[in-house]
Amino acid sequence: MDIQVIPYINEACWDDLAHKTVIVIDVLRATSTIVTALAHGCEAIYPVETVLEAKQLKQEHPSWLTGGERSCKKIPGFNFGNSPFEYLDDQFAGYPIILTTTNGTRAIRKAHRACTILIASLLNGRACASEAAALNKDIVLLCSGTQDVFSFEDGICAGQIIEELYGAVQGKDVELHIDDFGLSMLYAFRHIQPGMTETLLHCSNGKRLTKLGFREDVTYCSQMNLIQLVPIVVGDRITALPVRQSQLASQYH
Amino acid sequence: MDIQVIPYINEACWDDLAHKTVIVIDVLRATSTIVTALAHGCEAIYPVETVLEAKQLKQEHPSWLTGGERSCKKIPGFNFGNSPFEYLDDQFAGYPIILTTTNGTRAIRKAHRACTILIASLLNGRACASEAAALNKDIVLLCSGTQDVFSFEDGICAGQIIEELYGAVQGKDVELHIDDFGLSMLYAFRHIQPGMTETLLHCSNGKRLTKLGFREDVTYCSQMNLIQLVPIVVGDRITALPVRQSQLASQYH
Repeated sequence: MDIQVIPYINEACWDDLAHKTVIVIDVLRATSTIVTALAHGCEAIYPVETVLEAKQLKQEHPSWLTGGERSCKKIPGFNFGNSPFEYLDDQFAGYPIILTTTNGTRAIRKAHRACTILIASLLNGRACASEAAALNKDIVLLCSGTQDVFSFEDGICAGQIIEELYGAVQGKDVELHIDDFGLSMLYAFRHIQPGMTETLLHCSNGKRLTKLGFREDVTYCSQMNLIQLVPIVVGDRITALPVRQSQLASQYH
Repeated sequence: MDIQVIPYINEACWDDLAHKTVIVIDVLRATSTIVTALAHGCEAIYPVETVLEAKQLKQEHPSWLTGGERSCKKIPGFNFGNSPFEYLDDQFAGYPIILTTTNGTRAIRKAHRACTILIASLLNGRACASEAAALNKDIVLLCSGTQDVFSFEDGICAGQIIEELYGAVQGKDVELHIDDFGLSMLYAFRHIQPGMTETLLHCSNGKRLTKLGFREDVTYCSQMNLIQLVPIVVGDRITALPVRQSQLASQYH
């Protein structure tokens, strides 16, 4: 099983994705927020690239909610920003959410040629690795990055998922072939794992979000395997996959 | 002091290099070979991009020697390949060498807009970091990579140099601002440092070279700070900078 890590969106060669499982990562904060919203009862998320698209979709479906950010800030007129804490409220359960963020939703839309697209963050890294291993196809870990620059936290999450993939294929007749970039991320992940929160608070996006008053978001998003849920992109929307029994069992080991 | 790590040649934005110190890295094997040759009495190295250029230069200077590789193999009619072991022989001391390799010499030529271009490998990481710190300009660590793909060993060497830069600026009023990619490489370096040789033997280029019979080259190139010498690119040639006194002193601490 080939595991490739792409450092940011524009590095991806889209034609190569056809027969693969693509895992989209945007730890701070789009994919952490998606995982959180789905874990708290949101029915489906509709990722769109532009604010205009979001507004058009809202016009067609007035009962749907809108969320997202530009420059880390909530978009005027939208129900939510991009902080996972805004998506914890169960009163919104059952409503679809239209979401647009600067990098994360762009990565999701760009990955549409993949066989299967899963959504990962540190929060659900293990669940996502377990599902991807079960799909038994080559895996591309697509780090969203920030404005076409590699983001530390996305690379570290790729490292976490590779570590979890080793666990997921243990005892099976599967050999993982990690590319050089993935190998670097795995080792970096292993090195910083015990001090994840502290390290994330000190990377570029961690510092930027802290400055903007979102320190707690960084702390929240730095938690590993808090949520046992795998969002999957099907057509134009993201929903939660039912958790595999094997995965539930592994929690007790 | 800004420290930026570029994962492979085509990622570099050449216009940005004007006022910076660029450190070119191609651990397996071009820059390890350059450092080794200069440490063993070679007077100067002329890096050229193509075999044709090398042959033309040789015609103009029949006494000069020729070295290099294509697909890791020695070029027919050349004096040397790209194995550092071929450059240990002091009988060639004093002769300039014309060198062409697939990635390393290309990176060197591409970096010509930089203020200063230094050549680094694991062999001389500390010496190179010490010189770059003394130059007191923003630093770009340019990993050559392999055919426009990131190479593990180059990233790890960037991590080593960042670690050594911290040592070099210790006690001075200099703050290092490492970019996210550099931070990942620093942590990956810290994690694998105790098992450097073993890890390099198992990365893509390590495995490829081993298959081609160059296992000892990988082992040799994985040695850290074996050579106290900093090659510098001046115009069309590479020569050795005299070692700084401060650096010699630090060997005894």
